[in-house]
Parts: sequence; C-alpha cells; structure tokens
Amino acid sequence: MDLHETITGMGVKARAAASALRRLDTAAKNAALLDIAAALEAGADAIYAANAEDVAAAEAANLAPAMVDRLRLTGARFAEMTAGVRHVASLPDPVGETIWTREMPSGISIRKVREPFGVVAVVFESRPNVFVDTAALCLKTSNAIILRGGKEARRTNMALAATVAKALGSLADAVQFVEVQDHEAVAELVRAVGLVDVAIPRGGERLIRAMCEAALIPVLKHYKGVCHIFVDDGADEDMALAIIDNAKVQRPSACNALESLLVARPIAERFIPRVREWAREKGVRLHFGDAPLDSEFLALEMNVTTLEDCRAAIEHINKYSSHHSDAIITANAAHAAEFLRDVDSACVYHNASTRFTDGGQFGMGAEIGISTDKLHARGPMGLEELTTYKYVVAGEGAIRR
Amino acid sequence: MDLHETITGMGVKARAAASALRRLDTAAKNAALLDIAAALEAGADAIYAANAEDVAAAEAANLAPAMVDRLRLTGARFAEMTAGVRHVASLPDPVGETIWTREMPSGISIRKVREPFGVVAVVFESRPNVFVDTAALCLKTSNAIILRGGKEARRTNMALAATVAKALGSLADAVQFVEVQDHEAVAELVRAVGLVDVAIPRGGERLIRAMCEAALIPVLKHYKGVCHIFVDDGADEDMALAIIDNAKVQRPSACNALESLLVARPIAERFIPRVREWAREKGVRLHFGDAPLDSEFLALEMNVTTLEDCRAAIEHINKYSSHHSDAIITANAAHAAEFLRDVDSACVYHNASTRFTDGGQFGMGAEIGISTDKLHARGPMGLEELTTYKYVVAGEGAIRR
Repeated sequence: MDLHETITGMGVKARAAASALRRLDTAAKNAALLDIAAALEAGADAIYAANAEDVAAAEAANLAPAMVDRLRLTGARFAEMTAGVRHVASLPDPVGETIWTREMPSGISIRKVREPFGVVAVVFESRPNVFVDTAALCLKTSNAIILRGGKEARRTNMALAATVAKALGSLADAVQFVEVQDHEAVAELVRAVGLVDVAIPRGGERLIRAMCEAALIPVLKHYKGVCHIFVDDGADEDMALAIIDNAKVQRPSACNALESLLVARPIAERFIPRVREWAREKGVRLHFGDAPLDSEFLALEMNVTTLEDCRAAIEHINKYSSHHSDAIITANAAHAAEFLRDVDSACVYHNASTRFTDGGQFGMGAEIGISTDKLHARGPMGLEELTTYKYVVAGEGAIRR
Repeated sequence: MDLHETITGMGVKARAAASALRRLDTAAKNAALLDIAAALEAGADAIYAANAEDVAAAEAANLAPAMVDRLRLTGARFAEMTAGVRHVASLPDPVGETIWTREMPSGISIRKVREPFGVVAVVFESRPNVFVDTAALCLKTSNAIILRGGKEARRTNMALAATVAKALGSLADAVQFVEVQDHEAVAELVRAVGLVDVAIPRGGERLIRAMCEAALIPVLKHYKGVCHIFVDDGADEDMALAIIDNAKVQRPSACNALESLLVARPIAERFIPRVREWAREKGVRLHFGDAPLDSEFLALEMNVTTLEDCRAAIEHINKYSSHHSDAIITANAAHAAEFLRDVDSACVYHNASTRFTDGGQFGMGAEIGISTDKLHARGPMGLEELTTYKYVVAGEGAIRR
C-alpha cells in the first residue's frame, strides 16, 4: 500500500468515525474522555517504557539536551496529561449551541448552530503530551483526529495511540496515528480534500510553512510571537517596569513574552536607564539596534527602540510585530484608544502584560494553540474555535417568492 | 516591472489604504459609498461605451451567447449596481462591534471586537457588476480590495475602476484593479503572504481549484450546489411537490436549486408518478440512474432516487451532496431531528425550499457569496463574514501570576 492509499484509508475511516461522533451526546463524549484518562493511568508502565526507549535513542543520537528534555515523559507531565483530559471532560460542550435564531417574514425560522468540523489533522513535533491534549479537545468537540508526530517520539506516540484506541473501543477510528515517518505523509494529509477538514500544525515555523506550501485544505497557523510593549510619554513608569518584568522574565520561552520594547522619546533619557538597571539585575540582555527588529529571542534578551510618539509606535508594530500580542503603557486615553484600534494584532493590551494571551487566562477553559491567522480563529483557540456552524432552517411548506 | 513586483506594489499600497480605512468611522465610509454611486451615474456614458466595446469584441470572437449576455451592462443592471452600493451604505457596520466582554479575576477586562481583515483579493469572471458589488462590501467593512476580472470584461472593469478611484480621491488605493491579463497574476495574488489576507474567487470550479492549488493565503471557497430534497414516508405530499417545484423551477441556474430528489421506498410507488406528471407539465427532465449522482445540472433536469429510509437518505446526501443546502420533507419529528443533525451541509432544511439559502433571505442585508467551506464562514456570507476579530485587553498594571 502506498502513502497516498494509507492516508486516504485513514481519512475514510476518520470520516466514518466523525459521523458516529456527531451522534454521541455530551455525556457519552465525557465518559469516553474519562475512560481515556483511566486507560492512560492503567497503561502507564508500557507508555513509560516506550518513552524510555525514545529518550535513550535520542541521547544515543546526540540530540540537543533541550530536545531530549521536551521528549521525556516525567511523572509530573504524565499527571498533567491525564488531569488535562479530565478537565476537558468537565468543560461545557460547544457542539449544538445556538449562536442565534431568526424568524423571517418568509415563513422560515433559522437557527445558527455550532457544529464539529468533522476531521482534524494535527501535526506536531517532539512533545508527546500534544497527542493526548489535542485528541481530548477534538473528541470533546465531536471531531475525529488524525495525528502525526515527530520521529523522536515515535515509540511513545504509538504507545499512547494504542492505549487511547483500546479505551475508545468501537470508536477507535476517531483518534488515529500516522505511523509512517515519510515526510510526504504530511503533504498527503493536507491534500486530502473531502476527507480532512482542517490541519493544525503544532510546531515551528519551518513545519508550518511546509504545510501551507503543500496544502489544499485550510491550515490554522500558529506562528511566532514577536510581542511589543510601548511605553508612552506620561506613563506610570513603575507600572511600565513591572509589566516589562512580567512580560520578559516570567517565562521567556513563551510566544506571548516580550521581545521588543518601544520607548517614547520624551521619556527615553529618564526611563531607559531604569530599564538598563532592571536588565542588569534580572540578567536580561538589551539590544539597541544590533539585532533585527523582528527577532523572536525566546530568551532573556530583547530589543529596545526609541520612537517619536504613539503613532510611530503603531506603525513600527504593524511593520515588525508578528500580529500576536502588543501592549501600550499609557495614562493618555486618546493614545490608548488609537493604539487599541490601529494595531493589527490578535491581542492588544492597555496597561497589562502580553503574557495574558492564553486560553486559560481568557476564560476559554482549554487551548489548542494561539492563532496568528485572521480567518476562522484569531488569538487563543479553545473548544469553540474547534467548531464550525450550520444553519438549521424550518418551515411549514415555505417556498421562496 | 515584472508581475511579482506589480502585485507586491499593489499589495503594499492596499495595506496602507487598509490602515487609513481602519481610521474612518461609519459615517465617512457611508459617504464614500454614496460618492461612488453618484460617480457611477455621472460617468455612465464612458462605462457603457467601454462595455459596448467589450461586447462587440466578444461577439466578434464568437463567444457563447450566454457569455455575451453575462457581459452586457444593461440599464437595469446598471441601476441594480448603483442601488446595491446605496443599500450597502444603509446597512449596519459590523466593524468595532463587541462580540463579548469578560472581566477576569486576574484584573484584566477582555473585549472581543469585530475587525476588518485588512486586504481582500477578489478574482471574478465575466459579470462586471461583481466589481462594484464586492468593492462596496469591502469598503463598508474597512477592507481594502484588489480585484482581478475576466479578460472579456477588461474595458468595462477599467472604466469602473477609474470611476471608483476618482470618487475615492485620496483613498483610491482602497480599490485597485489588476490590469495585466497574465494568468500568473492570480497566482501572485494568492501567494502575497502578509499583503493580502484572504482571497475570494467569484467564479467556476476550475478557477477555484487553480487558486487553491497556488495559494499560500486562505481562500474562501464557493463551490457548486448539488442540493437534495428527501421526501420521507408519511410526508405531506402536496407540500413536498410545492417545495420541489419551487426548488427546481423558480431559478434552475441558482446554486441553491434542487438537483437530486430522494424518495422513501414506501411512498415511491405512489409519489413518483406524481413527480413524473409535474415534470411533464413543467418541462423538467428526470434522470433515474442515468446521470452521475453528484450532477449539478443548473437546468430543468434532476436526478430521482428511491432510498430505503431517512438514515439511507442522510448517508446518500453526505456522500453525493456538495454540502451546500439539503432538505427533508417529513411529518416525523424524530426523522427531522436526525436529518438536521447528521446532514453535514451548510444549510439543512425541514419542510422548506433549499432556495432560501441566500444572504438576503437569511436577513444578512447583502451577500458576497455562499461558502461551502467549513472554516471562517459557512453558507451565505454577509458583511459580518468579511470581518475577523481581535481581543482588546485592559488592565491597571495587571501582570500574570
């Protein structure tokens, strides 16, 4: 069987599973999720054993320690994974929710209702928890899922896939794992028009670009976060420093961390020395024009740029930002309003840290990623963003005049 | 200047125009729309003259009479076009609308707000009214638009473009027309990542497929409509016939017209003869297994298939439908509920005609097309579907703990 046939076969099975999922009520889906959590715990030994083999192979292959660390399934990560599945079971189910209803003079009543996509493909890299996290989010939203993971985590993912399949029983085709390692498998997935409804990459920029290049189906992109904070003339400078500290230092590897600080010229002479002092204390390396302005450092490093005013900051951000999360610190209401309206990013902040861009912090309960796209979903994606909608129209013999 | 530079240059100008549009309020946008309507009327002579040249060239080239007809700008069509622009001006503006607000215990308040996409590319075929219709919808939603039309209508489109540009004055870059006829121009448009946010084809299946194949940006697809009506056992057969008549005969060339009738076996022996009689009377050609089951006739022709029951109808529709609009005629509430839940189409109907799938009929005020996609927009697309959203977050020095 060639790769095209393999992926097509999986797509056909996923589509049938999606039809079955559509007929389950919320209680049945939650029960399936709790079964999965229990099965993972019951099968922990086999999963840890598979993971140990992956880790040993990665070490033998001299993979970077950070990569090996990401691969390793510790007790804490395992517990977080099963707790995550149970948490998803506890969340409200968006499927079937009514978005609006309209009674039309023509005699029809229209209901706009949230619906599952059908089949979702998730392509991820080395973190094995992504397998279980995304499968749980898809099951909760009645979507079948086809997963494809990095080759380093292959044994772990296969053990997870076997455990989940066993827990799902007759619904096993709702969560399928692509075992073939050929890169072409990803291309086949994103070209499976009519079988896969949407692809979600969970990985770096290279993976996302390769998928977009090959895709005939929609790809929900989660690009990098080049986040800015602009400190305006007249801002509360203590507040600004506290927000800068939180946005840069709390978790520098996060996509919502600060990468580029912009300072209004009238306060630069006073404020930048305070930033230098803070940076020295916290071990943050500052770049004054010696790094590309769109750098995503993901480390204790950042750009610092002095700009004329709020309008210049808006233009700088719209040019260099990745349109993820950008903030203004100001006491000037007109500047705040202008910044919040004109900065073309998924999340725009006034006097708050960019670190809040997160499904949990936004009250979504869970998050499958943070979209830097403008279509379908923008910013943090929770359960609702894993659904589409349809129009359910009822009449009593209504015809169009 | 090569094609890549031409399209990139247009994209850069469109992006700047999008920033300017973002700063206009609703009144200013409506004034611009009314200016356009007036300018079209004032410049009617030049537009008719250009159109007469296009029509003459098309006739000289022996284009099919239907194509020539589509190209011709009659007085009625011209009036409809300017009335359409004024109607769009009268509609509510979705930009800036609050979708929801949340106060979080962390100290931030979140507002989810409708936002323009930025830059929209519309690729259309021969009907010149599409130029003005889509430009008006984009301006109303603060989107800049780049249009590319069919070569048959080139002179008409250029006259329209010049008129609209003059009316827009300093905002002229908000509506740009691609004059080069090279097919590669379309490929350049759908690969302009960062400059064009979304592409909307307004044309046939071949155009849509070519755009998807080349695209790196999202394409909102409006594929064909292979619409079904299933007449269930126990249905009101008079009602069924009236709906079938409306769905097939009122406007057979529409994408929401009936193409495939499904009849439940227990009533087939009685009901199909009535259908035959109606078909004879109305000049509708019936196919009983002699045409592909997914045919889109767009004419007084349709498939008729007898199926076991409601479940078989759902499966048939999910297999052969284009997931546009499908209906059940039944008095059985359980069958209706099952059909409405399980048929995976943008619009599902109970005891009503599929012809209602339309932005106007759904109360959207205007329509840019009917999406057969599941992402971002499904079914009729009005002004709201030409927007994205962003999160506007405010705090008083809020940091993440």
